[in-house]
Amino acid sequence: MTRSETNKRKLFNDPVYGFISVPDPLIFDLIEHPYFQRLRRIKQLGLTHLVYPGAMHSRFQHSMGALFLMGHALRTLSEKGIPITEEEKTAANIAILLHDIGHGPYSHTLENILINGISHEDITNNILDLLNKEFDGKLSLAIQIYRNSYHRNFFHQLVSSQLDMDRLDYLRRDSFFTGVSEGVIGTERLIKMLNVIDDKIVVEEKGIYSVEKFLVARRLMYWQVYLHKTVLVAEHLLIQIIQRAKKIVQGGTPLFGSPSFLFFLKNQPEKKDFYSKPEVLNHFTEIDDFDIMSAIKVWTKHPDKSLSLLSSMLIQRQLPKIFIQKEKYDLSTVEKARQAISEKYAIPFEESKHFVVDGALSNRAYNQDHDGSFIAAKKGELTDIATASDNFNIQTLSKPVKKYFLFYPKANGVL
Amino acid sequence: MTRSETNKRKLFNDPVYGFISVPDPLIFDLIEHPYFQRLRRIKQLGLTHLVYPGAMHSRFQHSMGALFLMGHALRTLSEKGIPITEEEKTAANIAILLHDIGHGPYSHTLENILINGISHEDITNNILDLLNKEFDGKLSLAIQIYRNSYHRNFFHQLVSSQLDMDRLDYLRRDSFFTGVSEGVIGTERLIKMLNVIDDKIVVEEKGIYSVEKFLVARRLMYWQVYLHKTVLVAEHLLIQIIQRAKKIVQGGTPLFGSPSFLFFLKNQPEKKDFYSKPEVLNHFTEIDDFDIMSAIKVWTKHPDKSLSLLSSMLIQRQLPKIFIQKEKYDLSTVEKARQAISEKYAIPFEESKHFVVDGALSNRAYNQDHDGSFIAAKKGELTDIATASDNFNIQTLSKPVKKYFLFYPKANGVL
Amino acid sequence: MTRSETNKRKLFNDPVYGFISVPDPLIFDLIEHPYFQRLRRIKQLGLTHLVYPGAMHSRFQHSMGALFLMGHALRTLSEKGIPITEEEKTAANIAILLHDIGHGPYSHTLENILINGISHEDITNNILDLLNKEFDGKLSLAIQIYRNSYHRNFFHQLVSSQLDMDRLDYLRRDSFFTGVSEGVIGTERLIKMLNVIDDKIVVEEKGIYSVEKFLVARRLMYWQVYLHKTVLVAEHLLIQIIQRAKKIVQGGTPLFGSPSFLFFLKNQPEKKDFYSKPEVLNHFTEIDDFDIMSAIKVWTKHPDKSLSLLSSMLIQRQLPKIFIQKEKYDLSTVEKARQAISEKYAIPFEESKHFVVDGALSNRAYNQDHDGSFIAAKKGELTDIATASDNFNIQTLSKPVKKYFLFYPKANGVL
Amino acid sequence: MTRSETNKRKLFNDPVYGFISVPDPLIFDLIEHPYFQRLRRIKQLGLTHLVYPGAMHSRFQHSMGALFLMGHALRTLSEKGIPITEEEKTAANIAILLHDIGHGPYSHTLENILINGISHEDITNNILDLLNKEFDGKLSLAIQIYRNSYHRNFFHQLVSSQLDMDRLDYLRRDSFFTGVSEGVIGTERLIKMLNVIDDKIVVEEKGIYSVEKFLVARRLMYWQVYLHKTVLVAEHLLIQIIQRAKKIVQGGTPLFGSPSFLFFLKNQPEKKDFYSKPEVLNHFTEIDDFDIMSAIKVWTKHPDKSLSLLSSMLIQRQLPKIFIQKEKYDLSTVEKARQAISEKYAIPFEESKHFVVDGALSNRAYNQDHDGSFIAAKKGELTDIATASDNFNIQTLSKPVKKYFLFYPKANGVL
Repeated sequence: MTRSETNKRKLFNDPVYGFISVPDPLIFDLIEHPYFQRLRRIKQLGLTHLVYPGAMHSRFQHSMGALFLMGHALRTLSEKGIPITEEEKTAANIAILLHDIGHGPYSHTLENILINGISHEDITNNILDLLNKEFDGKLSLAIQIYRNSYHRNFFHQLVSSQLDMDRLDYLRRDSFFTGVSEGVIGTERLIKMLNVIDDKIVVEEKGIYSVEKFLVARRLMYWQVYLHKTVLVAEHLLIQIIQRAKKIVQGGTPLFGSPSFLFFLKNQPEKKDFYSKPEVLNHFTEIDDFDIMSAIKVWTKHPDKSLSLLSSMLIQRQLPKIFIQKEKYDLSTVEKARQAISEKYAIPFEESKHFVVDGALSNRAYNQDHDGSFIAAKKGELTDIATASDNFNIQTLSKPVKKYFLFYPKANGVL
Repeated sequence: MTRSETNKRKLFNDPVYGFISVPDPLIFDLIEHPYFQRLRRIKQLGLTHLVYPGAMHSRFQHSMGALFLMGHALRTLSEKGIPITEEEKTAANIAILLHDIGHGPYSHTLENILINGISHEDITNNILDLLNKEFDGKLSLAIQIYRNSYHRNFFHQLVSSQLDMDRLDYLRRDSFFTGVSEGVIGTERLIKMLNVIDDKIVVEEKGIYSVEKFLVARRLMYWQVYLHKTVLVAEHLLIQIIQRAKKIVQGGTPLFGSPSFLFFLKNQPEKKDFYSKPEVLNHFTEIDDFDIMSAIKVWTKHPDKSLSLLSSMLIQRQLPKIFIQKEKYDLSTVEKARQAISEKYAIPFEESKHFVVDGALSNRAYNQDHDGSFIAAKKGELTDIATASDNFNIQTLSKPVKKYFLFYPKANGVL
Repeated sequence: MTRSETNKRKLFNDPVYGFISVPDPLIFDLIEHPYFQRLRRIKQLGLTHLVYPGAMHSRFQHSMGALFLMGHALRTLSEKGIPITEEEKTAANIAILLHDIGHGPYSHTLENILINGISHEDITNNILDLLNKEFDGKLSLAIQIYRNSYHRNFFHQLVSSQLDMDRLDYLRRDSFFTGVSEGVIGTERLIKMLNVIDDKIVVEEKGIYSVEKFLVARRLMYWQVYLHKTVLVAEHLLIQIIQRAKKIVQGGTPLFGSPSFLFFLKNQPEKKDFYSKPEVLNHFTEIDDFDIMSAIKVWTKHPDKSLSLLSSMLIQRQLPKIFIQKEKYDLSTVEKARQAISEKYAIPFEESKHFVVDGALSNRAYNQDHDGSFIAAKKGELTDIATASDNFNIQTLSKPVKKYFLFYPKANGVL
Repeated sequence: MTRSETNKRKLFNDPVYGFISVPDPLIFDLIEHPYFQRLRRIKQLGLTHLVYPGAMHSRFQHSMGALFLMGHALRTLSEKGIPITEEEKTAANIAILLHDIGHGPYSHTLENILINGISHEDITNNILDLLNKEFDGKLSLAIQIYRNSYHRNFFHQLVSSQLDMDRLDYLRRDSFFTGVSEGVIGTERLIKMLNVIDDKIVVEEKGIYSVEKFLVARRLMYWQVYLHKTVLVAEHLLIQIIQRAKKIVQGGTPLFGSPSFLFFLKNQPEKKDFYSKPEVLNHFTEIDDFDIMSAIKVWTKHPDKSLSLLSSMLIQRQLPKIFIQKEKYDLSTVEKARQAISEKYAIPFEESKHFVVDGALSNRAYNQDHDGSFIAAKKGELTDIATASDNFNIQTLSKPVKKYFLFYPKANGVL
């Protein structure tokens, strides 16, 4: 009953692209690895489903989708005469497949709360090295591509750049599952327009409108989905729950939770611990959405009033009300709200900080400095898209916008 | 900051239908109720996502979708001159919204394993009564419709019959999220063809092809999705895990798990307990997919070898191999496999039953006796669809097909 | 300004598949040929748009779509290890691209009315020979494949068989443009399931449900679209118009029309004339939907009463009413209707035959004898799908159904 | 066999929206009128199908689609509490259904070529009056709405404004049929966001991103489809053909063509003639795409060399090459090209103007002055969208862009 090589050429059904085929037995084995299977239990958009009920899709699905698009891109480039070896192809496929392997549950929310001083990119690098050992060095070229140390730079750009397969998949997939049709992008068309010039991924000139549409769609997805104010409230509520739970557990009061989840609540490992103590990463790769939510559900009945209140708000989706304005909320407004909440729930003023939260949100749809820039190819000449598009002011899309929010549960005598 | 009535006319984004609007403040309040919010944490298709990664959608989404279709159907019937009062409309909407309120996690799999002698329909009835009390009797007509005690029978048929809004939504939605396009049905067209004659839901004659297509799609969804052999293996594995866990916990060995989940593992409440002891239903409405999966993850490290092996197989998706044939597997084959497994894992022969499982699967796409039958209206005359379709042998679709399976992990000396 | 070879690698936008790329400069040149461009002016579904307004798509679009699917199929087979040379690939692409090149306007309707004793397949063969000469023999292998004289038989099956690229495209495309979603088939999935065994195209066993769905979709498309009774009326009306016009023009009365259209009305060339007199084919390749409809529009004002009445009915879509039953209409009913029409329009009884038309319609969704049969591959063993599908009675789909119709304009004293 | 009132409640299949139901027997009768049926024979996008083969859809389909969206909009506004009477509803439906009734074939191209000094809007007004007489004044309110003389101004805005049902349908439909997915707009979402404040159609504030997306999609459709350079060449070629044909026919040489088409080539009626001479409008309502193309096909064999050359280029799609730049082409370049063409074809220099054509193209996606402006409603306060969108520079979308083109067939010694 050993699975033959041919059995490893499997087809996955995917509601977005139809079919995703696994191009390689090595890639099949990576998909079967517990580190990768774990991504099935981590939702791509965390708590977004509280606003867009369809957003239940997992990082597993996204990683498979990005693999699909990589195959598309490599085929397109080959057909345009860019030489790509089988080894490079496999490596690029692996690099994109595993680009999110270091993500934990609700990771954008819980980075710096549950784990400290270490990003999911660091953890990805860590896991890639472990897997490479396990697979006898077969991931070496993929790791070079991922870390941008491979001399053919454009492979890295397919994995990570303004127009990489990661973004192309997540924008389309998130748009698909949220039902926000404004975010739908023509991934197929965009990929058909890609080329490589001077070892850089470029978009052919006739693709300029598709790129513009992509930038607009991305920006709209930010405001409508990724920065949706109700999602924001839920995420900050989750942060407050974890912070309160850490305080409780570190104060010695027992708390329900899986051993690996409790490990992080109690021990607060730092970046260096991930490298020096194997159990840290072991615990990390054990936790997923299920650990977090099943614990919070139990906490709704915990004797600590703040913890149980916060937990109930999240589980029963009785979210605090959020206010947004262009200026930072002044201290007195915040204090007044905290006072009211402290009275309402009969909790110490200090603990009211978990219920009254202010902060800022911002977006940059096209950040020239940080991410590098799109380049449109015209007669072999490279131009930045911001200048290539004579009838569209791309710069306006990259203007950073900052807004301030304040949220708290309904209470008397405030806003 | 009190939410006004107009705020309760909310729009939900839905990837299948676009937008779903909540027609009524009462319905909005029911959606906000913890009993209903809980459906967000119960996947519609249980473990199916292990085969079709897109199948992450929740019973919350399905219930909202069925609500959407009910609105469509009631509007269509009104336009055709069937008198429907506002009160009836609201009641029919509530009946379909709450038709799955009694489902627990992995309910088709765990009924009779986690709960005994009580079906999710019983629990739904139980919860409906509780909610009706809480909402001052406003659900009475909805409950009559649900229980088919309302004198206008066709309302019940919209909630539960061969062609009800439940089936129309789940077939389309499951097909959408699994990516199995063969199951897509023209819900819009089918609903436009509905009418009421003699207080029965009928399909207009020109809708006969749509009904045939619906029956075929439903049958294909059964074989490709609902009875997919790998899903079957995963489901039976889950059953074995729960059975082993019950034995362990009832033997006095502590097991990780949320209090409500452990309650069911330990106490095995029966149907009458649901009615006589309020804490039984309370515990039931606390458990969802998160309780089950987070516990099983922890059990992968439990000292009980069988429990940890079974749990690892499910969590890491290292599923046993399944064999299917038209005849029942004979005892000696099963015994031989159990012997091999017992040796392989060095576990008592008795425990090998958790790893070597045989059983039967069957399907009936159109079961005339049980569900009542479709009726096509031609000049007011009612005909069974099986005879109405002169060029299609509907009976062949309803022929029950039975197959037998046997699965077990890879082991030497067997099949 | 000579177009370089690279310019010939063009992309066509297609609403059904997204993009269709032209794989070869030779194929690009064939697409640019006037014989092929002419297909832009011939609607795929003739008069069907009078019932389904979206059905405006052309044979050009269908031919390009079939080319797209052929590329898909050849790639799938190659990936499964079937050796296919570049020459064979190009030839198969050409064979499918040109498979409809011999179609005239409204060809299913007007065969044997406008042209006599010669089918569009004969004309296709004729044109293929002409093109082969023009392209210096480069179409020879394509012609062998088209005519099934190439020794690797499966290439012909991709062009013409139960499950060829022609059918796969037209069912999906016609379903797409008519908006009849029941006809949508999973072309992508079906093609992924194809393989070649013993030089025959087979469907892998797991594709059996997709094949069943395909057969059902095809059958439904027949009854809902291809044999739609109102389309039937329009088609028979067109036949009557052409017959009346031929009588008039052959009687010496001048009639408006393009020279090539008038050539066929006057001369009634036979099959042998297509081969012996070059001007016959020249005229044939000049006519398209525009010749027919622009003439009929002018004929609505012609002094011949029958011609103008028939023409107006078609142009203004005032179609006669059709009756359908399972038995042939008896002569007396037909005579009575003709009498009434003759009086109503004050035309000779003889001419009433153009307004009162009876006939038969039938369908066979799966005709085992004529077309050969599907074969499902299980462990290399070949089975007819009719027996392979143990839970589906495929034979019921192939039962020929015959119905009889009678149509005529509203008149007193009849049905 | 008289059609009963209920038979007039017909459903049309539509590939874009699924089903379109006819809300009213009066509207059904208008759809059946020859003036409206004629729109079946006029392609919505004229010659665009030469570049986007799917763009075969008719003005009939577009008008039905706009009717569908109007129904949607009126229902949305009613649900938000805007009082709308049955009479107003019917009138608004009629106004949008007939808004394109005055279009002729290739009307954007042939206005001022085939007809002079009269726009399709003038002709629409003319036809509306005729129909109103024919339908005993039942169109009076619809006409008021169309002409913006009805006191409730917002009805007119639904028919004609920045965000009217006309634009919403054509952008989505043209995008659908061309396969240019960048143009897809969320019509459903946009319409759900509409409201009426101070008798003006406004978009609710949360709809601001949808409006932005709409504006971007519209702009992209302009550059990718409506102003596509190859379509432009084809359109100008058609203009040259008609101009040459007029010269020939007015010089006394006979030309093939339908009587109504020839009437316009010979007589050049002016605006006043449309009102004073009934036969002018009669002839106008007789011509459609079929008259034009069937004549041009015959002209490919006309003895006038320029006419036959131009006609062949269009029919066989051997289009001249186009050059585009930001400055006007200087006279000497144009003269040089004309000289080369004159020699190449051995035609008088004067006639070379038909082959060498220069001109300008421009677009304004959001023209504040001309069309009025979008208004976003926030707490009842009205704002122009250009200022309402604080993070998007709408003005950049409305910047007029002008480019210059020059095209001519391949010839020696030029560009």
